[in-house]
Amino acid sequence: MKHTVALALLFISMFVHVCFAQDGGVVEDFKPSEVNQPGKLYPQVNSEGRVRTQILAPDAKSVQLDIGGVKYDMRKDDKGLWTGESAPQDEGFHYYQLNIDGASVPDPGTIYFYGAGRWGSGIEIPAHDQDFYAVKDVPHGLLSEVIYFSEITRAWRRCFVYTPPGYESNSNERYPVIYLQHGSFEDETGWAKQGKTNLIMDNLIASKKAVPMIVVMDNGYAYKPREGAAADAPRAPQVSAFEEVMVNEIVPLIDSRFRTKADRKSRAIAGLSMGANQTMRIIMNNLDVFSNYGGFSGTSNYPSSDEIDTKTFLNGVFDDAALVNDRVDVLWLGLGTKEPRPFPTSVGAFRNMLDKQGIRYVYYESPETAHEWLTWRRSLYQFAQLLFK
Amino acid sequence: MKHTVALALLFISMFVHVCFAQDGGVVEDFKPSEVNQPGKLYPQVNSEGRVRTQILAPDAKSVQLDIGGVKYDMRKDDKGLWTGESAPQDEGFHYYQLNIDGASVPDPGTIYFYGAGRWGSGIEIPAHDQDFYAVKDVPHGLLSEVIYFSEITRAWRRCFVYTPPGYESNSNERYPVIYLQHGSFEDETGWAKQGKTNLIMDNLIASKKAVPMIVVMDNGYAYKPREGAAADAPRAPQVSAFEEVMVNEIVPLIDSRFRTKADRKSRAIAGLSMGANQTMRIIMNNLDVFSNYGGFSGTSNYPSSDEIDTKTFLNGVFDDAALVNDRVDVLWLGLGTKEPRPFPTSVGAFRNMLDKQGIRYVYYESPETAHEWLTWRRSLYQFAQLLFK
Repeated sequence: MKHTVALALLFISMFVHVCFAQDGGVVEDFKPSEVNQPGKLYPQVNSEGRVRTQILAPDAKSVQLDIGGVKYDMRKDDKGLWTGESAPQDEGFHYYQLNIDGASVPDPGTIYFYGAGRWGSGIEIPAHDQDFYAVKDVPHGLLSEVIYFSEITRAWRRCFVYTPPGYESNSNERYPVIYLQHGSFEDETGWAKQGKTNLIMDNLIASKKAVPMIVVMDNGYAYKPREGAAADAPRAPQVSAFEEVMVNEIVPLIDSRFRTKADRKSRAIAGLSMGANQTMRIIMNNLDVFSNYGGFSGTSNYPSSDEIDTKTFLNGVFDDAALVNDRVDVLWLGLGTKEPRPFPTSVGAFRNMLDKQGIRYVYYESPETAHEWLTWRRSLYQFAQLLFK
Repeated sequence: MKHTVALALLFISMFVHVCFAQDGGVVEDFKPSEVNQPGKLYPQVNSEGRVRTQILAPDAKSVQLDIGGVKYDMRKDDKGLWTGESAPQDEGFHYYQLNIDGASVPDPGTIYFYGAGRWGSGIEIPAHDQDFYAVKDVPHGLLSEVIYFSEITRAWRRCFVYTPPGYESNSNERYPVIYLQHGSFEDETGWAKQGKTNLIMDNLIASKKAVPMIVVMDNGYAYKPREGAAADAPRAPQVSAFEEVMVNEIVPLIDSRFRTKADRKSRAIAGLSMGANQTMRIIMNNLDVFSNYGGFSGTSNYPSSDEIDTKTFLNGVFDDAALVNDRVDVLWLGLGTKEPRPFPTSVGAFRNMLDKQGIRYVYYESPETAHEWLTWRRSLYQFAQLLFK
């Protein structure tokens, strides 16, 4: 109800639709989702933010649309075509799946995204502010896939690298870099695909709201080989080697392959959720490498919401407020207003610590979004404007 | 049987397994497919080239593995887990899907590829010659995504561009270009993903079998907007605008954004199946733009297997053999030995015409492969070695 009212305030034109919906029906203004496969008519989204999908499954007993933690029963017609709708969803991007007689499968109508630990379906509920990540007639940068062998993990790894418009022709210019990390059960494709990083940066740079910069999106999962262990031995909990990979392999790789400004003042590191936690540790342990930090829906005290003891937290680095204020040019935190616990309380505890210590930071709240990609697209949009100026 | 024998000859170590299989069973040496999602144990492939997959579908009545045009019934255990195997498949890459109570869906175990007109599951049957497209410790080029607005189609389009190792650092060097096209019901991701173009080129360049070159992979579907037609009007058959897009938009775009050698001698155009048909028309209509051609499993007389009349075929261009021999540096044709009709007879009719006219060309046969990606990976590997030398 609160959500319905908020949407009505945002879109005057939707108000009539919302009234219809409150009369008990579903507003019949569904349109194909923008992340459908070419030529596919379903899934669709209506002005209420409901998702409707269809699948032919003539012999199935039960088909459900599984989105936002709720399974919605679909209905079968006499040709075996199942149709069903969800309740209204928040604006922005959501992962979802179908359930066919107990099997969880992607919806064959959508293109696929990596999240929730699997390649699966996604849907876009058009956001009122989607213009900032729309494909527009502005100069477009390149999104490049780089494969490299990591000596630390003894494995091939991959990152995506955004280079801004003009990078190829301005062959003497060097650029600052953001290292941008995904969340848990996501991978290096997250920011490149559902994050819309390239479009957000193209639009920011075209409107001169951000300076031209490189953005590097790598995979936050990195483990050293288990020395001497048989391949089939029970797995012990592994300690992440990601910090070491980032500082000793990824940053040098990017500095060697791309025309970067290879100094700490020209490097930012940011991440969402797990990535926010990881990257805060990385910058605070490596203030000689990075000087700007963005924590989108997360901080390194996660999942704790307790008061932070600056003497012990992250080796006591925040105990020296003068040092942090001197060495960190931008310390940026963002959160969606609808995020579930413990995100608000955990980030809140971190902010309380900063306030108490007198450490400068910027705090942004994404209106009416939860722990999802619209929060993080908006966070990148806000954060990138403050960097390297 | 013929296939089994061929495999046995290739892998001495597999011979014992093949004998087991001939005793009536399935050889129990399955391993997870190399294109599985991270952490997924199924689907698996055994030494016979059989595919085994599993899916939990406790309430389903029937689950089938649908591969190579055959649907294989899977078996349910008491926990609702379905398991099933296919007959042995050819070496190389295959699209497939699952059928759950009549619903055709991707297998949630694999990463997804665009082919057969949809994003869906794929599997790799390890090929005896897979080394040429393996990820190796050699310098790796970049694979970049370029988005651009096409004035001809009034739509945003996308291509993938491979730039060779050294491209970024050798900033004064210019490179020749292959324009490489997918087949019907595929898109610009085909060569970039299942085609393994970047790895094939990395390996060829590292071994000095091919010169460093750029490879451009665009989408072969291109139509002009329907002037004056209402959006919901019945669709008339559309005439492809792809040749115009290639010559007037894609080539100039690539020449402007990348350091190309922008002359006909430094350009090749090639494609598979529908792409072979399209690109032959394009080069023959534009001998001032391209001077090298690769036709992988297709020619422009497709689907005809009739004798070609050189007076009328492609505006009579092949009637002037001296012109073709003078203007086309490499005219290359490839075909898998197991391709179905009409590919062998149609390409055969084209070769007969070339022979009769005295036109020089190279013909390659991919052993034991059908109209599938291993044929085309091998074709690219062979073709690229002959170019720009």
